[in-house]
Amino acid sequence: MSSTFGTLFRVTTFGESHCKGVGAVVDGCPAGITLEEADIQRQLDRRRPGQSRLTTPRDEKDQVTILSGVERGKTLGTPIGLLVANQDFRPGDYSETDQVPRPSHADYTYQMKYGIRASSGGGRSSARETIGRVAAGAIAEKYLRELCGIEIVAWVSAIGTVDAPAVDMDTLTREQVDASAVRCPDAASAERMEAAILETRDRNDSIGGIVSCVCRQVPVGLGEPVFDKLEACLAGAMLSIPASKGFDIGSGFAGARLFGSQHNDPFVKKGDRLGTLTNNSGGVQGGISNGEPIYFRVAFKPTATIGQTQRTADFSGREVELLARGRHDPCVVPRAVPVVESMAALVLMDLVLQQKMRVTP
Amino acid sequence: MSSTFGTLFRVTTFGESHCKGVGAVVDGCPAGITLEEADIQRQLDRRRPGQSRLTTPRDEKDQVTILSGVERGKTLGTPIGLLVANQDFRPGDYSETDQVPRPSHADYTYQMKYGIRASSGGGRSSARETIGRVAAGAIAEKYLRELCGIEIVAWVSAIGTVDAPAVDMDTLTREQVDASAVRCPDAASAERMEAAILETRDRNDSIGGIVSCVCRQVPVGLGEPVFDKLEACLAGAMLSIPASKGFDIGSGFAGARLFGSQHNDPFVKKGDRLGTLTNNSGGVQGGISNGEPIYFRVAFKPTATIGQTQRTADFSGREVELLARGRHDPCVVPRAVPVVESMAALVLMDLVLQQKMRVTP
Amino acid sequence: MSSTFGTLFRVTTFGESHCKGVGAVVDGCPAGITLEEADIQRQLDRRRPGQSRLTTPRDEKDQVTILSGVERGKTLGTPIGLLVANQDFRPGDYSETDQVPRPSHADYTYQMKYGIRASSGGGRSSARETIGRVAAGAIAEKYLRELCGIEIVAWVSAIGTVDAPAVDMDTLTREQVDASAVRCPDAASAERMEAAILETRDRNDSIGGIVSCVCRQVPVGLGEPVFDKLEACLAGAMLSIPASKGFDIGSGFAGARLFGSQHNDPFVKKGDRLGTLTNNSGGVQGGISNGEPIYFRVAFKPTATIGQTQRTADFSGREVELLARGRHDPCVVPRAVPVVESMAALVLMDLVLQQKMRVTP
Amino acid sequence: MSSTFGTLFRVTTFGESHCKGVGAVVDGCPAGITLEEADIQRQLDRRRPGQSRLTTPRDEKDQVTILSGVERGKTLGTPIGLLVANQDFRPGDYSETDQVPRPSHADYTYQMKYGIRASSGGGRSSARETIGRVAAGAIAEKYLRELCGIEIVAWVSAIGTVDAPAVDMDTLTREQVDASAVRCPDAASAERMEAAILETRDRNDSIGGIVSCVCRQVPVGLGEPVFDKLEACLAGAMLSIPASKGFDIGSGFAGARLFGSQHNDPFVKKGDRLGTLTNNSGGVQGGISNGEPIYFRVAFKPTATIGQTQRTADFSGREVELLARGRHDPCVVPRAVPVVESMAALVLMDLVLQQKMRVTP
Repeated sequence: MSSTFGTLFRVTTFGESHCKGVGAVVDGCPAGITLEEADIQRQLDRRRPGQSRLTTPRDEKDQVTILSGVERGKTLGTPIGLLVANQDFRPGDYSETDQVPRPSHADYTYQMKYGIRASSGGGRSSARETIGRVAAGAIAEKYLRELCGIEIVAWVSAIGTVDAPAVDMDTLTREQVDASAVRCPDAASAERMEAAILETRDRNDSIGGIVSCVCRQVPVGLGEPVFDKLEACLAGAMLSIPASKGFDIGSGFAGARLFGSQHNDPFVKKGDRLGTLTNNSGGVQGGISNGEPIYFRVAFKPTATIGQTQRTADFSGREVELLARGRHDPCVVPRAVPVVESMAALVLMDLVLQQKMRVTP
Repeated sequence: MSSTFGTLFRVTTFGESHCKGVGAVVDGCPAGITLEEADIQRQLDRRRPGQSRLTTPRDEKDQVTILSGVERGKTLGTPIGLLVANQDFRPGDYSETDQVPRPSHADYTYQMKYGIRASSGGGRSSARETIGRVAAGAIAEKYLRELCGIEIVAWVSAIGTVDAPAVDMDTLTREQVDASAVRCPDAASAERMEAAILETRDRNDSIGGIVSCVCRQVPVGLGEPVFDKLEACLAGAMLSIPASKGFDIGSGFAGARLFGSQHNDPFVKKGDRLGTLTNNSGGVQGGISNGEPIYFRVAFKPTATIGQTQRTADFSGREVELLARGRHDPCVVPRAVPVVESMAALVLMDLVLQQKMRVTP
Repeated sequence: MSSTFGTLFRVTTFGESHCKGVGAVVDGCPAGITLEEADIQRQLDRRRPGQSRLTTPRDEKDQVTILSGVERGKTLGTPIGLLVANQDFRPGDYSETDQVPRPSHADYTYQMKYGIRASSGGGRSSARETIGRVAAGAIAEKYLRELCGIEIVAWVSAIGTVDAPAVDMDTLTREQVDASAVRCPDAASAERMEAAILETRDRNDSIGGIVSCVCRQVPVGLGEPVFDKLEACLAGAMLSIPASKGFDIGSGFAGARLFGSQHNDPFVKKGDRLGTLTNNSGGVQGGISNGEPIYFRVAFKPTATIGQTQRTADFSGREVELLARGRHDPCVVPRAVPVVESMAALVLMDLVLQQKMRVTP
Repeated sequence: MSSTFGTLFRVTTFGESHCKGVGAVVDGCPAGITLEEADIQRQLDRRRPGQSRLTTPRDEKDQVTILSGVERGKTLGTPIGLLVANQDFRPGDYSETDQVPRPSHADYTYQMKYGIRASSGGGRSSARETIGRVAAGAIAEKYLRELCGIEIVAWVSAIGTVDAPAVDMDTLTREQVDASAVRCPDAASAERMEAAILETRDRNDSIGGIVSCVCRQVPVGLGEPVFDKLEACLAGAMLSIPASKGFDIGSGFAGARLFGSQHNDPFVKKGDRLGTLTNNSGGVQGGISNGEPIYFRVAFKPTATIGQTQRTADFSGREVELLARGRHDPCVVPRAVPVVESMAALVLMDLVLQQKMRVTP
């Protein structure tokens, strides 16, 4: 169903852009995990607006409160309630768009689906909804990192037509990613990306890009054939992020151009386990992790809200000119990095728990 | 969970490549729908091996039997059991690979996940598993077409490095697609693609490609925010198909290169509803269908089984040379066309039923 | 999964007895329903402690806040976040029991299941958890009453050995039920029940009882064969209420003593529909509502916490004497009335939405 | 959803009384379990009609075929398809009832819910549907018995007004239960029960009864607070069995009459664990198993089909006399014994798998 993600590690998010708060309930988190608000706040800070000149100037602190499920710094195994109050609530910024559905926003489709919609902002389709995902993902990440040794690192690999060169996925760290405001670990590319974003912003336009992600030290055996293949879960998770338009894993779309003799990953001995010489599979074979790094890409379209006059139609079909005001990101991609990591963490966490049922008693 | 797809129109598939049969149980199908085995067989025939010289020479009829849920040619609203017996069972073809996990197959990961695996063939990771999906998808399609007017057409848009030009998605028919064995509606491209496949086959190699798909006349309002956005459901469905490596919708990965002023789809009056002038959104905004055609692409890697000697390792890590025998497709992409259509039908059918709960009493 | 109830109208509750708050997220509520906090508060007030001399003297206001999903007094179709802050937090009352699991409480089983438990109070097994259910149930009830005409009324039909005579289930109202603090609509029985509770309280003991419930004007056709039969959903819902030990519907356990010729409910014409002359079926046949009143009973054991010294064992197995302090209900049954109504509402609401998928397009 | 049971060990049943076959797909069964058709047939034989003079004279063999998921006598961890062909198909027996809904059958409610129903027999509401449950339950039982040491034994504790005395639940075996055709382990009661059934049959009537069940050696910690408490899962499972009308666990309805000081189960040391001196809790506290025997009762109404003329109404509301022919059980209760055991096994199996996610990595 719509607002719940996961089978065993289940996250239910709630909250619109302009209600009292946004958050999530995390059900199925194992008991006895060390957890405090700061563990969650760290990723929320990487997601929040106002963190650099590349993002929207709206400055929201997005402080998380743990409502339940944790006592004396340990999880109880019971649902963890997470709440972030909405503070920077400026309904006036949006009132103009009441009669005119904003192009490529969700105003029109929400109105048609529900017969009603939030009076201002994006309501539930707002990027603020991702706060609940990031908060829940931070809990999953903590478990994956501390108890399974899994590392998840995402970065910006393209902004508009600026492509970063391949990175060393085996060693890449979040510190390297966060060295630039645009979250591209290649310094030269980062500079060009930032210039592209600022130039776009100055033209009152917006720009798209690509987030890449690697998950390392993932144990062999995660992923549930048939419909919950690891790549299927990741694809569904990533395409549920606002503004995402595509996903590929391993060789991805480029792999469709290859011959089997080029694409196959031969097995080789790696320590006491089997590994593969190449990794066109992206760490997944038959929908199940094979111990190699899992890497994938997520395409994001340019933000729909732009500061330019757009010729469009109002709900009645009458042609109008629309000039959105408000304050928005010229490029959502750098802030999408922790969201991609969080969704990857939620997928892996759920599959880790599902795989436990295969342990013999 | 792994072998069940959908929330209200629920499909549970079963069967390995070399057991008594494969099939599916479809639960949640509305009552009173006209249905007979021939409705299902039509799509199974487009999926089955041995249908053209481009596919594996294994000639399996894949005749479906409706076990339950239908009486006097009408669905009862109860679970529809569907069974296809396995006939062309040749275990000898595969026995060699018992000790050696085939590169880029699921032998290794299944063994590690379950501690056991089917003794021959791909077991549950075999493409035969998709029979259940296609059979179930044919039922969904019938409902969507006859009761909602929805049309779903997929086609091969690339084989290896051969790209077909853009097609007229508004008028494309399955007859046009099936005019060529490779299922590319552009005749010139089809010819080049077929040549590429046959040449690949003659080199005992395999080749990848891309299936594109359009869904027309989809009513406004399908898709469930937040995690069951229409594109998220499609992405998850498509990446669950064996050998798929990527998915994008609308502008997709190319959209990440654009500016918002280029990418936004202005609204215009279309008859008595709003439509959009362009369709970079691919028919989906905020995760909800907007009435425009939904179109997307699915990337398929080259088949893992090739007729060439491969240097790899056995389960113990010892380096070996492996020469797979058996009879396999040099290119799985043309046969993937009905599978993509079926998964799209399953997604839309489920969302059609989910949207019904929004009708006021 | 554990803390989520429902398929389409989904309620996820959170919160222990002694964390920051308890509440629920309601996902799948139809859009456009009139809703304000007072609609919810009404049932919470019937559930809260301290409402009469029959209940625990702990006086908790249990004020609900709607966090999301409602704007300008209407539901948006998005998740409704509901929060009740915990105020009367007195950890000292419980500290004694840290080493000694209280007999017939959940201390021992939670500790064994999770390896940890809330440091005081019942944690998640506390009756406070039912706040989330009642808050969510109040929303469901509003929809059922205003849009479907369904009426749900529960009452206390037995306290200990005091049985109330049969009531007129066709006309019974909540006002009649609430006329006595014990919530038994038969005045003479109510008086005897109250005396029994007070006398039990004075002996520092506790006492059990039975809640009966009727659901009227339920449309024909609700309930999903096979596993989600209406009575199965009700039974599961009722047995999930803390302290409940049994459920029966219609003729129930007494029906097992009858012959078919006595038990069968003959059909008769009732206005423009078929009804039944008798109602041993309790309004459900084949798991599906038949339009007659649905009535059932729920048995509640006596509260586990009593003010008497109990001989028991500590976690190490050492025999000890335990004297619980704290302030507790001598009888939880009157306060269980709105909880039973709420769970019935959640069941019916979910089945109403599920039945909508059967409307032809 | 309707035809699927369980979260991790998921059973989807299919089949009406008069289609090609009935069966189930079991998804989530652990790999490597020894399994053959005989393991399943044993319980099917205890369920099948025609096994004694107490049951319907219809003699159906109900031979099960394993379609998938098992190879060389071991489960593969993939979905297990199970099929039982329908053989004794006599449509003529039922044709009379087409215009007249049988009293207390599901004819009327199915017709109203779906707008269509199976042309003869009970369709999906037929007791034949339980074949899928029993087949799946036999697999669960095998796992529970062989890998967890859990024993499940059900028996008939009442037929009409004949009550059996309490049995020794610690030692009761299925052999003792099956010593009488009525499946009551107390020989004197069994004799009276059989006489009651035969006398009822001779009067062309039917009679109800109660099945009791005990689950022994269940490990501490099974059951998922809040909504999937062990007793809630059992209650939902049992009330989903055709003809069941009530469920209670431990002290049950009788417990509602007691004081806390009588009802509480004091802890005592039992070997290296804590046990309880009494077991009014029925082996469950706070929704979680505590290691003591789990015992519960299920009430069954008399079979709706009787050989007597009944005054009722047809679908149009016109008063008619109905005389059902066909061959039916005068008492379904003895055959319900393996169904109750099977549903208990499905509940415990699912909870065993769910509890595994709490093992630290």
